[in-house]
Amino acid sequence: MTRYEQLAAQIRQQIEDNIWQVGDRLPSLRESVKQSGLSLMTVVQSYQLLESQGWIIARPQSGYYVAKSKTSFAAAKGGKGSHLSENVEINASIFGVLQACNDPDIIPFGSAFPESALLNEPKLAKSLASVARRITQQSAVANLPPGNEKLRRNIAQRYAMQGIHVSPDEIVITAGAMESLSFSLQSVTEPGDWVVIESPAFYGCLQAIERLKLKAVAIKTDPIFGLDLDALEDVVKNYPIKACWLMTHYQNPLGGTMPIRNKKRLVDILNHRQIVLIEDDVYGELYFGNQQPVAAKSLDTLNNFFHCSSFSKCLAPGFRVGWVAAGRHATKIQHLQMMSTVSASVPTQLAIAEYLSQGGYDNHLKKLRMTLEQRQHRLLSAIAQYMPDSVKVNTPKGGYFLWLEFEPPFNAVRLYQLALTQGISIAPGSMFSTSDQFNHAFRLNCSFTWSAQLEEAMKILGRLCHQLLNEKRD
Amino acid sequence: MTRYEQLAAQIRQQIEDNIWQVGDRLPSLRESVKQSGLSLMTVVQSYQLLESQGWIIARPQSGYYVAKSKTSFAAAKGGKGSHLSENVEINASIFGVLQACNDPDIIPFGSAFPESALLNEPKLAKSLASVARRITQQSAVANLPPGNEKLRRNIAQRYAMQGIHVSPDEIVITAGAMESLSFSLQSVTEPGDWVVIESPAFYGCLQAIERLKLKAVAIKTDPIFGLDLDALEDVVKNYPIKACWLMTHYQNPLGGTMPIRNKKRLVDILNHRQIVLIEDDVYGELYFGNQQPVAAKSLDTLNNFFHCSSFSKCLAPGFRVGWVAAGRHATKIQHLQMMSTVSASVPTQLAIAEYLSQGGYDNHLKKLRMTLEQRQHRLLSAIAQYMPDSVKVNTPKGGYFLWLEFEPPFNAVRLYQLALTQGISIAPGSMFSTSDQFNHAFRLNCSFTWSAQLEEAMKILGRLCHQLLNEKRD
Repeated sequence: MTRYEQLAAQIRQQIEDNIWQVGDRLPSLRESVKQSGLSLMTVVQSYQLLESQGWIIARPQSGYYVAKSKTSFAAAKGGKGSHLSENVEINASIFGVLQACNDPDIIPFGSAFPESALLNEPKLAKSLASVARRITQQSAVANLPPGNEKLRRNIAQRYAMQGIHVSPDEIVITAGAMESLSFSLQSVTEPGDWVVIESPAFYGCLQAIERLKLKAVAIKTDPIFGLDLDALEDVVKNYPIKACWLMTHYQNPLGGTMPIRNKKRLVDILNHRQIVLIEDDVYGELYFGNQQPVAAKSLDTLNNFFHCSSFSKCLAPGFRVGWVAAGRHATKIQHLQMMSTVSASVPTQLAIAEYLSQGGYDNHLKKLRMTLEQRQHRLLSAIAQYMPDSVKVNTPKGGYFLWLEFEPPFNAVRLYQLALTQGISIAPGSMFSTSDQFNHAFRLNCSFTWSAQLEEAMKILGRLCHQLLNEKRD
Repeated sequence: MTRYEQLAAQIRQQIEDNIWQVGDRLPSLRESVKQSGLSLMTVVQSYQLLESQGWIIARPQSGYYVAKSKTSFAAAKGGKGSHLSENVEINASIFGVLQACNDPDIIPFGSAFPESALLNEPKLAKSLASVARRITQQSAVANLPPGNEKLRRNIAQRYAMQGIHVSPDEIVITAGAMESLSFSLQSVTEPGDWVVIESPAFYGCLQAIERLKLKAVAIKTDPIFGLDLDALEDVVKNYPIKACWLMTHYQNPLGGTMPIRNKKRLVDILNHRQIVLIEDDVYGELYFGNQQPVAAKSLDTLNNFFHCSSFSKCLAPGFRVGWVAAGRHATKIQHLQMMSTVSASVPTQLAIAEYLSQGGYDNHLKKLRMTLEQRQHRLLSAIAQYMPDSVKVNTPKGGYFLWLEFEPPFNAVRLYQLALTQGISIAPGSMFSTSDQFNHAFRLNCSFTWSAQLEEAMKILGRLCHQLLNEKRD
């Protein structure tokens, strides 16, 4: 442990022991320097680490305060590859990372969206214009949950072509995959229930669990094969798990894809205990090569799983149209929707339905996949060229994220902050966990057109990583 | 108490005493007839009453079961005009009522939507078509929360013209008022917290409270002046109330509007204890006459109140565009949104922004208000003509609902069921409360073009009411 980690651990212990309680102001940086004898830089790093872990929050002009609800961790009994998060509270700084990516002056390596130009599809705009001419006020009521019938049939047909039997009646159109996932989780849990999530996981998953006051067991997830099924088997024996939320393809942030034999084993483990699978498959269409991997939903013989996706990663993020294939839970999802957002936006539902029925989506996807694969290669070579040799990076077979790791205690939050001062955003690993075990890693978005500017940004990132690794050695 | 109410009370007591526990199957109708010596009809009515109150649920082909979480009521200490709902669970049959209104073959007196033809505004369709031609993929990111800047400025300008100062930065564009309200409530409460609601209240409010696991005190609401402020004063002394959710104008379902002197007193009571007001003002624009009543938000000197509205009741329900003026809570609302629906649909946000900036909305609203006022008069005369003389009905000064009451124990759920067999929907009073105190009342939507069909439907409703009143006397 470095000195700043030691100090952070010490403060964390004080918080756990209620020496500092929720809302208390911590000693100022100056006071802490005096007290500890450490350098100001070391103290700042400790506080930043605690902040990135959600233990404390900074209030400008005022100081650091103990955050509202602490996260506690313990090794799950019998589950080596898992850890327990009784109460999940995620890092409020996630919003800072996301906001930074919206600034047009900042290189958005930290962004969750694919490059917008990639999704340009003039035919969709035409469909929207044509819908605008024909739309009637009646259509608001006609497209109440479960959503536009033609669109549901289009989606069911796409499932059928993958060999997955889903009835249009089991599909509910939503305002995007995040809403699908959140309704799915809500429909099968009560506050205090246990769920299984990935580690690291999509931050939206952590947030949904926090909002619904669930307890989570985060299971080690492999950058190539996805969720560790041995660990899962141990966990379901020891906890009354209600649901398991995971990404089977091009997992965010690691990029792994669960092989079909693993999916079969996963489904067996879950069905044996009637645990519901919530399959987040928003990147499923972005596979490289010719063969789309088949969702675990295809193995859902009990009609008990949720398969959630959207048009936001492949076609039109701003349209806010997604869906969930909810099996036997479809009615409950409709009720949740009628009492929250009522329905997805009608004009955008109709526009996508018209666009899909004209054909052309598959060609668009084909081009998109090829471009993303090329851009992944381009960023990988920049990484090879500019990053310290000790970097570890995986090569996902789809999607548009790369996950980079250095040996701990590399501080990716510090990298994020330093990079931001140079006009570059990254997504630090701490965004994807409530524990501190991914502080040495970060995610880069590789969907952008290569340019001198990106080249320069990678050079700077490389230099900053060298610097942080050297600091560590000092 | 009639015999069926006695039987219902008896079964309810048995449930409260845990004789029947959650999930237990109740005696079958046949068994209950044998046991009680009552007629089958009486037993059916008792079970239906219990079902409408959320105590039991029917499973087709199987019988009646004790519902998952019971609602318990008690008189709030010191608050004569209030009652306590520790755990709110609303009637699942609400969804049945709402679905029935979507059936084009059914007269939709029970509908929550205004007649769709009334909202016809060709200029809006033109704006959408023009947006479709110009829209770029960049716009998805540019219109992330808090939402389209031009639209937020348009809305702030409309506030300013009513004398309410709201900065565009405090406004968050949402997927409709229901989402605004739900985010507002969520941003200032934790599960188990107490909130004040109206009695009767909009069922979406009951649902949001159930979902967020809050405790509610429902306060008597006057059909003319709105919330009973004496009762409120008692309640805030006796309960640690966090928020107060109410409709200041054309309250759904009663139709009352809080006079300005009441609004002032309301704000004083709330500010004194730092209780947040969540003002649901979706019908505020639908005032009759020349003077729009001013929202309680105008008195919000602490910038601590939420004012929630949308374009769904006046312009375009299917666009799913609403907003919340959230004062100091605006950032928290954005975070909740980014982790649930991400943003409102971008094309529909842009279309409404363009439509508003062209002018014409105020003319549309003017026409809409005049038409609604005429249609209210028309339905009132049909009520005078066809309904039993003992009916009580209020004349709201805006909106498009009428609330009809008979002396208890009139059974409006039974009326709903009988009317539905004749192709007519109504909204029974039990939808608007977790208690049984509004079972003798129902809500009618008066926004529809008068026709021979509506005339006939009112005749039938009148006849059914006579029949139910006579049954009672037997």
